[in-house]
Amino acid sequence: MTTTLTYRHLFGPGPSNCYPEAISALGNPVLGHLDPLFLEIMDSACQGLRQVWGTTNSRTLPLSGTGSAGMEAAFVNAVGPGDVAVVAVNGMFGARMCEVARRTGAQVVRVEHPWGTPIDPERVAAAHPSPKVIAAVHAETSTGVLSDIAALGQLKGDALLIADAVTSIGGLELYADKWGIDVGYAGTQKCLGVPPGLSPFTISDAAFELRIKDPQSWYLDLGLLGGYVGSASGSRRTYHHTAPVTMIASLEAGVNRVLQEGLGTVQARHVAAGLALQDGLEEMGLDLFAAAGSRLPSLTTVKVPDGVDSAAVRAYLLERFNIEIGAGVGEFASSVWRIGMMGPNANPASVTLVLGALKEALAKAGR
Amino acid sequence: MTTTLTYRHLFGPGPSNCYPEAISALGNPVLGHLDPLFLEIMDSACQGLRQVWGTTNSRTLPLSGTGSAGMEAAFVNAVGPGDVAVVAVNGMFGARMCEVARRTGAQVVRVEHPWGTPIDPERVAAAHPSPKVIAAVHAETSTGVLSDIAALGQLKGDALLIADAVTSIGGLELYADKWGIDVGYAGTQKCLGVPPGLSPFTISDAAFELRIKDPQSWYLDLGLLGGYVGSASGSRRTYHHTAPVTMIASLEAGVNRVLQEGLGTVQARHVAAGLALQDGLEEMGLDLFAAAGSRLPSLTTVKVPDGVDSAAVRAYLLERFNIEIGAGVGEFASSVWRIGMMGPNANPASVTLVLGALKEALAKAGR
Repeated sequence: MTTTLTYRHLFGPGPSNCYPEAISALGNPVLGHLDPLFLEIMDSACQGLRQVWGTTNSRTLPLSGTGSAGMEAAFVNAVGPGDVAVVAVNGMFGARMCEVARRTGAQVVRVEHPWGTPIDPERVAAAHPSPKVIAAVHAETSTGVLSDIAALGQLKGDALLIADAVTSIGGLELYADKWGIDVGYAGTQKCLGVPPGLSPFTISDAAFELRIKDPQSWYLDLGLLGGYVGSASGSRRTYHHTAPVTMIASLEAGVNRVLQEGLGTVQARHVAAGLALQDGLEEMGLDLFAAAGSRLPSLTTVKVPDGVDSAAVRAYLLERFNIEIGAGVGEFASSVWRIGMMGPNANPASVTLVLGALKEALAKAGR
Repeated sequence: MTTTLTYRHLFGPGPSNCYPEAISALGNPVLGHLDPLFLEIMDSACQGLRQVWGTTNSRTLPLSGTGSAGMEAAFVNAVGPGDVAVVAVNGMFGARMCEVARRTGAQVVRVEHPWGTPIDPERVAAAHPSPKVIAAVHAETSTGVLSDIAALGQLKGDALLIADAVTSIGGLELYADKWGIDVGYAGTQKCLGVPPGLSPFTISDAAFELRIKDPQSWYLDLGLLGGYVGSASGSRRTYHHTAPVTMIASLEAGVNRVLQEGLGTVQARHVAAGLALQDGLEEMGLDLFAAAGSRLPSLTTVKVPDGVDSAAVRAYLLERFNIEIGAGVGEFASSVWRIGMMGPNANPASVTLVLGALKEALAKAGR
């Protein structure tokens, strides 16, 4: 491509703009995937991921695919033909979990909730007497809703708890161990402020013991992956597949940037930006989509005013301001916008910019 | 990490050092995966990949995982329970194909060849009267052997031909259409000179029609992926998973760098570097491992002289020269070295450097 480069303000559901440390690391010299210098970076990335996951799990690692690969890894390693998987569905990613689980041959018990509302932990936990796994999305990217994973963890009984933390990791409170998450997967391109392409993943020792021993996926077989990434730092690594070294260096830099700023500080920055955005949208007379009390700070959903062409407003924002916001999903594709304030974008300047730009776009649209 | 950065000469089996254009593109502004500016980059990447694959297949795209994910995508989309898959095995990657195919429930017919020799197309084609697929590795990374995929294509009959081009794409002659490759997967981190993390993939229309309609992998389901990557440029894209935008920008830049230099010129550069290296090693009195007439220019295998500690030599090269070469694989782990001259490293300077360094290392080892 010989065109000029364009900076976009990525205020959609992700990818977000990235931390400068994460971008800078992409340009570091490429290292071999078995080079001792690279294994130090991998160890540092895994150690940093443990902190943002809130876990001491030895098996905490970046999988070599996007968040959806993490979802697939969670299910193919946890359930097989005939196993019961209870899945809480309150948006697209819960629905996707059902589809991924179905393809393992598991018996899927789908617990539906209205989009825009959080999951009901009691109803989910009561959906089947003895499931092998119970799965739920912590932060539903499709609806902007935060659900109470800790409550589900208390009610899970003997089941393994699978949690999707794609839009919470690195920006919102997340305590895998304290909440009882047995298997967790996430993404890099949201609050962690790292380009997309890896899935931060964690699995407890107990869940690892109960895993499917010959899963249908070779690429995502955690039993094989462990030989390379290793549970014990410094032990001999065996080759599984060529690790995406450049992306892992970027993740290592991004996650350590977050830890250096301070996880609490970063979370407070996300909360402040999300609340300021939500207040500002309501002051403009717009209605928020996600239920009050369950709104994600990292990703805000807002209803498109009656008579306004959703796509035209998004195109105006992109063309005039280089601002990307997201459309809605499914039946809300044209009636909801999704505005993310994630990673380095979780700050007052982003809030002020997107509110001012949206005000102008709506005025143009005759509102 | 706050350590200083180290430049390594990556003369192993991959990752290789990368083209500067591919590294530079990693630092470009991050774009949304549905941004029209990104879709232009994706289209350009796919178009470039068609050229290095030697195909006009509309479904030619970078999968969001490494070459091993490409292998898994090839099998889960092509075979299911009970289907017969004939797999030619002359090294680790052929063996891996068998394992990946087995996990789909396919009946695997494994056709063994001695490591270090090319596949025998007639024996492979005769191994079963009516397989659904026949699979082989074009350039065996574990042994440094080139096999005749064109001959296998002529003998495949009604079977679909799956080919692994991980260590040939972008550096060696490869003509997917002319040779009759129905499904091909590759990697970015070898001759293409792009960091690892994506798998250039191609599937013919005919193979796409015969694909497994509900494959066990959701992440690698080509039927779903097509909606996003699109067979027809400019058509409406539907979201499947968040594309690894940064890596795709790097691939686009790398593959177009290769095309700008000229595919024939780049191939000649790989051939010249490989021959010069192999001549130089023999002049040093070393024995090559791969059978004469079937040696990969991109990756040379050489026997470790009797009495020489393979690992000690590799450590010496790394510590004194920042040169990485590869160990052997499997039973040849300590008795073979693998030396890659790939991508930007396929040049006289790399050959001279590695020969000189190896001579010194062997002298130190008392040879």
